[in-house]
Order: sequence, then structure tokens, then C-alpha cells
Amino acid sequence: MATINVALGIDIGGTNTKFGFVDKEGTRVVDSSILTNAHEPAENLVSRVHDEAEKMFQPLKGHYSLCGIGVGAPNANYYRGTVESPPNLQWKGVVHLADLIKHYYDLPVAVTNDANAAALGEMLYGAAKGMKDFIVITLGTGLGSGIVAGGNMVYGADGFAGEIGHTIVDPEGRQCGCGRQGCLETYASAPGICRTVWELLADRREDSTLRSVSPHDLTAVMIAEAANKGDVIARAAFEYTGKVLGMKLADSVAHTSPEAIILFGGLANAGALIFEPTKRWMEEYMLNIFRNKVKLLPSGLKDADTAVLGAAALIWNELLRQA
Amino acid sequence: MATINVALGIDIGGTNTKFGFVDKEGTRVVDSSILTNAHEPAENLVSRVHDEAEKMFQPLKGHYSLCGIGVGAPNANYYRGTVESPPNLQWKGVVHLADLIKHYYDLPVAVTNDANAAALGEMLYGAAKGMKDFIVITLGTGLGSGIVAGGNMVYGADGFAGEIGHTIVDPEGRQCGCGRQGCLETYASAPGICRTVWELLADRREDSTLRSVSPHDLTAVMIAEAANKGDVIARAAFEYTGKVLGMKLADSVAHTSPEAIILFGGLANAGALIFEPTKRWMEEYMLNIFRNKVKLLPSGLKDADTAVLGAAALIWNELLRQA
Repeated sequence: MATINVALGIDIGGTNTKFGFVDKEGTRVVDSSILTNAHEPAENLVSRVHDEAEKMFQPLKGHYSLCGIGVGAPNANYYRGTVESPPNLQWKGVVHLADLIKHYYDLPVAVTNDANAAALGEMLYGAAKGMKDFIVITLGTGLGSGIVAGGNMVYGADGFAGEIGHTIVDPEGRQCGCGRQGCLETYASAPGICRTVWELLADRREDSTLRSVSPHDLTAVMIAEAANKGDVIARAAFEYTGKVLGMKLADSVAHTSPEAIILFGGLANAGALIFEPTKRWMEEYMLNIFRNKVKLLPSGLKDADTAVLGAAALIWNELLRQA
Repeated sequence: MATINVALGIDIGGTNTKFGFVDKEGTRVVDSSILTNAHEPAENLVSRVHDEAEKMFQPLKGHYSLCGIGVGAPNANYYRGTVESPPNLQWKGVVHLADLIKHYYDLPVAVTNDANAAALGEMLYGAAKGMKDFIVITLGTGLGSGIVAGGNMVYGADGFAGEIGHTIVDPEGRQCGCGRQGCLETYASAPGICRTVWELLADRREDSTLRSVSPHDLTAVMIAEAANKGDVIARAAFEYTGKVLGMKLADSVAHTSPEAIILFGGLANAGALIFEPTKRWMEEYMLNIFRNKVKLLPSGLKDADTAVLGAAALIWNELLRQA
């Protein structure tokens, strides 16, 4: 009996590591999640994922064949198959993740960062199906990006391309975790919009429910809820976030002229609150030849699916090209 | 007797149209130049280039075979083979340039803009030989750019990618010819550095030979000459140009992570005056993971050669890939 090929997609996060078997149409056959245990060495995580994945796959043997493994991880390097000083994992230095996995599986393995994996997920199964030029922006605790040009993921000379979150809005602007000032992600991200609210609360006199929330407790979700109830400060915060993001996305368009930009992640879930001003300001700041050409789209994948589907898409993309 | 394949490279400028026959190693076998006569329709120019090229090629027949035609032209669209409302030619609307050329030659024809052609020229014959990820920046009357990622020219969804000259330095900055404000090319270009001199002459009190030149007469070459003689204002103008250019190039690096950025054209001929501050500020504004990785290089082609070699490289690049 012919078996159906599936890829194992693994998404390594600071808290959870999700994985699942995905066929080439993007159907998840089965999946699971374990604690990453960020303080443990990578070897332990790989061993635990392998044990659990084997258990899951056992009853599927005979019907399905595993054909490759794709991994999305922070600070992953596609060329080297490594993860290098990830910010939210206590792995030391350069970890040869692909090699660790190949210890268990004699199959093609590819790793890349989460935003690139998300971009490949959108290309194979989501909002960018059939597109050759697009950008995925993940708006979460930071701003990640994956750029696809001419149907190819842009990895750059060193495998680290796609750091749009660290393009500079204002060289004398907000302090960024990267050690510089004024990076886009200090404005356009979940923590970024919180910082904007504090600035607005300082600048303006309007009443706002957000005045009774401590900076420590404030979240982007609260800001969205307040904005939906008409809170002036919250609405102004989305307007400002959209202005800054729209301006910098116009710069990105001037680089690779994408057919679409896909916004994804926590802050993108605010829907029209963030899409409307971002689109409006992107058009405002856009060079005339690109105006009204670039779609601003929500993800075509369900939030829960994206990470694992993206990781699986990474290896499916390679296998399907080789075929 | 076996013949040697050559491509016809044509560079259409506002004043002159240069063309030449180039073999696949980048040797120009023979070349020429005619007046563009920008007020005439494109048909006339193509007909005149064809006549002249035929005359040149006549004595070469038997030794050489023509295998394709590449054209560099302002506002050229690679996908459509068109030139669309070029700023310095009085061609009306959308001109199907590739089709006009195919009327004379039953051969592969490709067109692209001058900066993309320059990038392909550098990749095949110049400073980017062997590189897969690099950016060419042309600093002339404007700032043009050609981006190569993973060995492929980035054309984008519409064929107009690579407009780094129109990324925004300051949304309330200098008026740009494109109708917006604060575009990079209003600072980093030959006219841009002149504008910087006028600003500096207004702001500062130091003596400068440039105070006796009318704005109408001032050129980037004069500023370079004054800077080389130690003129404080002229030196400050290069410093400022390098700062703005370096900051925006750091943004470009965050997009495609190139191995090198090649500066080319009139202003780049100022050498260390422009390279030194640009490199220093680019590193200053660079995200840590990219720091000290990206080379800032002069063109590897002679100025006089670039346009025709680039145009020939466009078609050679296609022919060599298909082979």
C-alpha cells in the first residue's frame, strides 16, 4: 500500500516547543507540544521531541512516511543549520541544531527563524499562496520579518536577512533591546504600542481607562479593548503605531516591491485597529509607482497552526523544489 | 570555423545612447555611441541603433555570432520589456521597447533599468564577481539601486524593485522630485550634496571657497575639490552625506543582508571623501549581527564601460542560466 509523505515541523519557543506531522497540502496529521525547558541544553530538547514524535508516529507507520524535518527557532541560521545565542533560550553560543536532529533521523533537515518559517507557511498554505514576492511581518514581543523575492526566501549572505524590526525610525528615538535607538520594533510590537500609550498619557490630557493600569500590567490586548470602546488615547496609540509602521513598510516596498505584506501575530489580531492606519500611512509615504499596488493582508493560517505549519513548510518547500 | 558568441548591450541615456558587442567574459569587441535625441519617438532611436550596430557588426561576421540583446534604460520594466514614462526622454506613456527591438532581431531581448544593469555588470564582470547577495548604489543625479539576493536580481512583483533612493530619511525633510519629502536621494546624490552645502553655508560661519559659487553653478565635483583642499564646509558636507547614506544603508542591510554594497557613479568617484564617512556611519547604525560583515566597495568596472557592460550582462546572465 502506498504511504503518504509527511514532514515533521518543529517550532521551538522560549516556553513551549510545538511539533506535528504535516502533509504537503498543509494538513496536520497529528501534533503535540512539550515544555522547552529553556535552561536545559539543546540535546535534551531534541531527545525529548524525538521520543514524543516517535510515540505519536508509531500508529501511523504503514500509512505515512516521514520525508524530512523543518525547524523554526529564534536566531536560527538556515545556511549553517545552527541556532546562535537565542535571546530566550539558555543555549550557549552556537548550537548545531540540524546535526543534533540528524543524529536521530537520516533525513533532510532545515532550520530557519520563526518569521521566515511563517513566511514559507503563508506561501505554501496561507495568504501568500501563489505569490512570488511578499513580506511577512510578525508583530509580537518584537517585530520579525521574512522576505520572499522571486519565489525565493531571502536569507542574505549570512543567513540572517529579514530584520525589518531593526530598521531605524529615529536614530535618537526609543532604546531598543539590540543596544541601539529608534528601531521599528520599539514602536511596532506589543511592547512598542504600550510605550506609545505611556508617551501619549504624558503628552495629552484626555481621560483614559489606561490611566488606571500600571505600566507593568499594561498589554497590547488591553489597548485594543480600550480602543474598541472608543478610548481616545488607545485609538491614538494605534494611529501612531500604524503611522510609524506604514512609513517603514513603504521603505520595505521600495526595496523588494512585494505583491503583499502580511501582518501576523498578537498585535495583528487587533484587526482594523492596526490594519487601517498602517495601510493608510503606508500609501501616504509610498513612492508613486508603488501606490495602491501592495496588499496589506492578515495571515491565512490559524494562529495555533502557523508555527508548526511554517516549520513543515520550510522542508516541504525544499523537497518539492528538488522533486 | 567556430564563431564567438557576443551580446549587444545598449544603454539609453537622456543625451547619449551607447552600445557595443560584448562576449561572455565581458570583453567589448566593438562599441559606439549616438545621440539619443530624446524628443524623437523610441522607434527612431531603435532604428538608428540598429543601422549603426549592423554597420559595426558587418566586418565581424564570420568571427562572431550575435546571441541576444540587453538594454539598460530609465524606468525600464524587466517583466514587460517596456519603458514607462521615463523622466529624461520625451517618450509618451508605455513604450514596448523589447518588441521594437525584436522587429529587427529574432533573438532574446531583455530590458531593465540602469541600476539593475549596473548590478548585473558588477556580478558578471566587476566587484561582485562570485557574490550571490549584494547591492549596487548609483550616486549620480539621483540615487539608483539594484539588489541581488541569492544570486537573483530582485525585480519585485511589478518589475520596479530597488528604489532605495526613495526610502525616507525624514518625512518632513527635503522636497523630492517624486512629490514626497525627505527621500534618501535628496541627500545622497550629486544634487543632494549641493543642497547640503547650501544648508551648511546658512548654518555655519566658517569661510569657504564655495561661498563664491552660485547655487546654479555648484557641482559635486567642486565640493570634492574643495574638500580635498581642506575646505571645512565641503568636508562637513561629505560627512553629513555619509551619515545619512550610512544610516539608510544599515536599513538596507537589515532587509537583504548583502555581502557587499557597491557605490558607483559621479559622487562615488570622490573616493575616500564619501566611502569613509558612509562606512563609519553604516557600522554605527548597523544591527550588531551584521556589524563588520558588509563590505563597502567601489565599482569593479571602468566608468565608461559600465553602462554597456551592464546592459550586455543582463542578457548574458539569462543566456548562461538557460545553458
